[in-house]
Amino acid sequence: MLSLSSQGTRPLFSHFRFLSFLHSPNSHPKLFSISPKPPTLSIRSCASISAKPSSDLRPKRDPNSHSSADAKLRALRSIFSKPGLGIDAYVIPSQDAHQSEFIAECYMRRAYISGFTGSAGTAVVTKDKAALWTDGRYFLQAEKQLSSSWILMRAGNYGVPTTIEWLNDVLAPGGRVGIDPFLFSSDAAEELKQGIAKKNHELVFLYDKNLVDEIWKESRPEPPNKPIRVHELKYAGKDVASKLSSLRSELVEAGSSAIVISMLDEVAWLLNLRGSDVPHSPVMYAYLIVEIDKAKLFVDTSKVGTEVLNHLENAGVELKPYDSILSEVESLAAKGAKIWLDASSVNAAIVHTYNTACEKYYESLESKKKGKTKANDDLNGWSEGPTGMYRVSPISLAKALKNDAELEGMRNCHLRDAAALVQFWVWIEEQINKNVKLSEVEVAEKLLEFRSKQPGFLDTSFDTISGSGANGAIIHYKPEPESCSVVNENKLFLLDSGAQYVDGTTDITRTVHFGEPSPRQKDCFTRVLQGHIALDQAVFPENTPGFVLDAFARSFLWKIGLDYRHGTGHGVGAALNVHEGPQSISFRFGNTTPLQSGMIVSNEPGYYEDHAFGIRIENLLVVKEIDTPNRFGGIEYLGFEKLTFVPIQTKLIDLSLLSGAEFHWLNDYHSQVWEKVSPLLDGSARQWLWNNTRPLVKQ
Amino acid sequence: MLSLSSQGTRPLFSHFRFLSFLHSPNSHPKLFSISPKPPTLSIRSCASISAKPSSDLRPKRDPNSHSSADAKLRALRSIFSKPGLGIDAYVIPSQDAHQSEFIAECYMRRAYISGFTGSAGTAVVTKDKAALWTDGRYFLQAEKQLSSSWILMRAGNYGVPTTIEWLNDVLAPGGRVGIDPFLFSSDAAEELKQGIAKKNHELVFLYDKNLVDEIWKESRPEPPNKPIRVHELKYAGKDVASKLSSLRSELVEAGSSAIVISMLDEVAWLLNLRGSDVPHSPVMYAYLIVEIDKAKLFVDTSKVGTEVLNHLENAGVELKPYDSILSEVESLAAKGAKIWLDASSVNAAIVHTYNTACEKYYESLESKKKGKTKANDDLNGWSEGPTGMYRVSPISLAKALKNDAELEGMRNCHLRDAAALVQFWVWIEEQINKNVKLSEVEVAEKLLEFRSKQPGFLDTSFDTISGSGANGAIIHYKPEPESCSVVNENKLFLLDSGAQYVDGTTDITRTVHFGEPSPRQKDCFTRVLQGHIALDQAVFPENTPGFVLDAFARSFLWKIGLDYRHGTGHGVGAALNVHEGPQSISFRFGNTTPLQSGMIVSNEPGYYEDHAFGIRIENLLVVKEIDTPNRFGGIEYLGFEKLTFVPIQTKLIDLSLLSGAEFHWLNDYHSQVWEKVSPLLDGSARQWLWNNTRPLVKQ
Repeated sequence: MLSLSSQGTRPLFSHFRFLSFLHSPNSHPKLFSISPKPPTLSIRSCASISAKPSSDLRPKRDPNSHSSADAKLRALRSIFSKPGLGIDAYVIPSQDAHQSEFIAECYMRRAYISGFTGSAGTAVVTKDKAALWTDGRYFLQAEKQLSSSWILMRAGNYGVPTTIEWLNDVLAPGGRVGIDPFLFSSDAAEELKQGIAKKNHELVFLYDKNLVDEIWKESRPEPPNKPIRVHELKYAGKDVASKLSSLRSELVEAGSSAIVISMLDEVAWLLNLRGSDVPHSPVMYAYLIVEIDKAKLFVDTSKVGTEVLNHLENAGVELKPYDSILSEVESLAAKGAKIWLDASSVNAAIVHTYNTACEKYYESLESKKKGKTKANDDLNGWSEGPTGMYRVSPISLAKALKNDAELEGMRNCHLRDAAALVQFWVWIEEQINKNVKLSEVEVAEKLLEFRSKQPGFLDTSFDTISGSGANGAIIHYKPEPESCSVVNENKLFLLDSGAQYVDGTTDITRTVHFGEPSPRQKDCFTRVLQGHIALDQAVFPENTPGFVLDAFARSFLWKIGLDYRHGTGHGVGAALNVHEGPQSISFRFGNTTPLQSGMIVSNEPGYYEDHAFGIRIENLLVVKEIDTPNRFGGIEYLGFEKLTFVPIQTKLIDLSLLSGAEFHWLNDYHSQVWEKVSPLLDGSARQWLWNNTRPLVKQ
Repeated sequence: MLSLSSQGTRPLFSHFRFLSFLHSPNSHPKLFSISPKPPTLSIRSCASISAKPSSDLRPKRDPNSHSSADAKLRALRSIFSKPGLGIDAYVIPSQDAHQSEFIAECYMRRAYISGFTGSAGTAVVTKDKAALWTDGRYFLQAEKQLSSSWILMRAGNYGVPTTIEWLNDVLAPGGRVGIDPFLFSSDAAEELKQGIAKKNHELVFLYDKNLVDEIWKESRPEPPNKPIRVHELKYAGKDVASKLSSLRSELVEAGSSAIVISMLDEVAWLLNLRGSDVPHSPVMYAYLIVEIDKAKLFVDTSKVGTEVLNHLENAGVELKPYDSILSEVESLAAKGAKIWLDASSVNAAIVHTYNTACEKYYESLESKKKGKTKANDDLNGWSEGPTGMYRVSPISLAKALKNDAELEGMRNCHLRDAAALVQFWVWIEEQINKNVKLSEVEVAEKLLEFRSKQPGFLDTSFDTISGSGANGAIIHYKPEPESCSVVNENKLFLLDSGAQYVDGTTDITRTVHFGEPSPRQKDCFTRVLQGHIALDQAVFPENTPGFVLDAFARSFLWKIGLDYRHGTGHGVGAALNVHEGPQSISFRFGNTTPLQSGMIVSNEPGYYEDHAFGIRIENLLVVKEIDTPNRFGGIEYLGFEKLTFVPIQTKLIDLSLLSGAEFHWLNDYHSQVWEKVSPLLDGSARQWLWNNTRPLVKQ
């Protein structure tokens, strides 16, 4: 599956996950202002966007009648002037407190207040106006779902102001703009604060209550409370004690005494725990604070059973209520702890609380000193006091470098996933041969059915992209039952899907034709495949950032003047998030993280012809050292090992375009697919696999 | 020929031309400190450098006896304390006042004072110490040439201080460090100033005299005084009036009223003039100031004959003495001119003089105002006053985008150059067949002889790199008569050479074997060739920076764990400098200038095996629009047209490695070589060309 940002799960505002998506750097839609860290795995800039947005096919999931919308806005505004509040505007982002890609329903405040249910958007409500920003994927959906009380801000369109620009325009100078500081990364809040300061507006952190929750009341879904489970050591490969010990070494080396970890996949990875709080990602809502001699997990303790409790106790991790995170941060500051904070992911509530507590620490130190003699007045007290150490989370890279057990789990679950896909392909071909009318949604549901029969299956790893014909050209298409298209023998069919298993995470795209593909489709498919092969076969010196390899995947399309507007590869977690950083393979060159042994990346070049068809071929790969006959420069040379073993439809290949080496690659791949996946199959599925893995002969 | 920097002729200190050469970013040798603009076309960072430096083969061109060296230092130091001077150290860089790659002998002050004649280095003399910084290429040569009075600073070696670090270490705080402000770009001087300010040293600009010239006296060579000539319109393609008019539009758009142009190739290009003041580059020492309604050329007027005078008058360009540049800059400031200045190339003398004059302007304005009433005291006078506008020279890109006449001249001169090379290859093969002992220098001289017979020949475009066997692995090897190696049938021979013609500039590398190459040599040669072909055949969307294509040229070497430590392509001038910016094709990704139609780049992948052999295959290419069957995104797709047509030795190719497309490329190239070059040849040369352009048949 394509990632919406370079970092998979990094925060929206500092990385512009969704905004980076469909627009050129020049017409970059800005919620607040230009990000200091531009996104690197995002859609290639271009004048127009693909086909028509999926949104026009999307129903109103929450039929937010216009009168109820107005009632919500009235209720929200009535809080603005309450004692101790006195705000002139309130900004409601899509985020949860952990900058997650997939969030629990109870945190979908922007959807509740605006009625717009798309995954990306920001709502701003003033005393007399309400505006919602979203990107090109969602314009039509937002038009349908927003009441007339709302102004739709088509982010990226010419002349559309950013959130900051709009606030600075509509508010009288000196206004007070409220936010829930848990829902903004520290970086994003700072950006907003500085942006509105130009018109002397003040950013007001409302810690005590989320104003949308105030009006949502009883109808607000309960926070998720499914039990947390231990991620078995045979899958995790490294016990919690070892992981904590490595982390603590990094803290000591950096001169930190503690770290606040707020990304949910980082908490899950570090503690070898998994949860079920959000769709698609096996994580639980929690914060983790690791100090040199202790660690505290902030979580709804009702989710913690005996096994998890023992597991945590063994690792020396204490349990704390989820809501006590701020008081813990305060007491760390009071103790003089120097906390490592990743300001791009840790929320503004935590960072601001810590900074305020640090100030108090020094004020109290100062007043103590005044009572003492000059002789005692040295600066040691100062250099030993609390200070925020702002840097990228060390967990991000540690988590990206998979160990042998994690790789083994990834290899195994990919074979079971492949078996499910083969059963699915057999089924769909039969249906089409029998002229059964199949909708894109039915097809996706059937795929889920086959996958869910596989041992260790837990969930899909993202919403299946099941795109027939022109819908395949909509890069993040999500079919809806009422409106979706049919899959038949006249159209190309693009299927991008993945699953969470107990031992790993999958993400695969195949494009197939059930009838006769056109020469144009074959030409494009073959070039996408050649790009896929070129990246798969790349060998490169250590310290090479992913973007160096991106052009390999495009060069065959470029030769005939074609291209695709997204990156070529994103990181993938091991039984964790389907999108993770820090690596990426993209035409954007902002992300200079080198590809390193043990990292997992997707290889997913594509081509999308508006209103016609979409093609994407995606495998997951592991970066590994290659045993080259030379090692010029005394360094390692790296390459890729494939994780995904599912046939590529040869009917779609224009054989005259393939080189001998490309023929060899394809035949070798199919031979491996047969060898690895056939033991998991029998009957018609085994026969289908045999038929679809036969070697091609070069004419 | 390989370029030593991304920009060819950009200044040493701000781009670290030579220092960027052989060292990793981490062990970056720093003369002053890290440059804000890292070099992009430089040698791949690596632990060791190739073979042995050429310097140990280099004779003492200036046998600087130790006693005379000491006498020079004594004489220099005796000036330090003269009235009005009072300095504690003097820094002597390699540069001329225009940051030229090749400089006239009279400006080789660093070589004169130190005795070290290598092309790159910086000398610093204090009252009791003298130190010289150079890079790995020149360590042995510097050891031989420096007297015991000098400390050799092996830049880039572990623990070796930068110039700034050393000055801050050896001078008592509060020292005065003198420089000739003409020899430092404004950026470089600022860097030095800030670096030494940490120890409260003051950077002192000595405008009136270069202290080395003071002691050099009568033995100092005269400044060059060869006549300037007009570069005919049929070669230049655009007349001076049009060029000035385009430039003036840019000035107006930027809000500037004047520009100071100091790069010699920029002056030559803009005025369609050529000179003979320095080796290898057809330029003359001059500054040019272009205002909205006039233009002034600052040059030794004795070089200007009637034709050039008329040419300049027609274009509305006045002549001024070279030395009057500073007074002109002062009077521009006094007139309130806003001058566009490229601080990376314009020298500190000019920039500082302008800034001082600007300050005077505002002081005088202030005092005038004091005499007036409040009512007149508006700020208009200020916003209209002089201000330096610091940005990249607009000439750099304009010059890089060749027009049709320039491209025609480049195409034509490349065919004549090819004819000369063919005659040369015939000659050398005959000599070797006759067992004549040939030195690398003799071979280079013979090549020059053949080239000089071609119509329009003017000069070599750089010192010929004629490297036999292990010397081929020394990337910037320059053979010297007394010490060079022989060319024979037992060794690979790398020949990188180029010429200046009246209509264009060439730069070509071929690697050949006169006997039987080893399988290892063939394997490496073939992979270098495959990289050369992959880059030659690349098609890419507009707005693609050169570094995106760099990996195409390396990928075949990478597959077997090999690489090369230099960039793959540099810009080339049309009948101008063999190295020019702003584009480059390199593994370094600092230079994001997109490749654009009409730019010329070299395509020169290589492979160097220490103490054994070197391989490089270099053609020049023109970036041009490709007529692709699609134009995805509505943009242009670009590719390359070859300029260089000289056979590639097929004996060195391992045919089993070549794809069908690569076979086709080679046969097609050789067929074009025959077609284009054979009309310029007869006799044995024509026969040789026929023999060496026959198509290969894939087994």
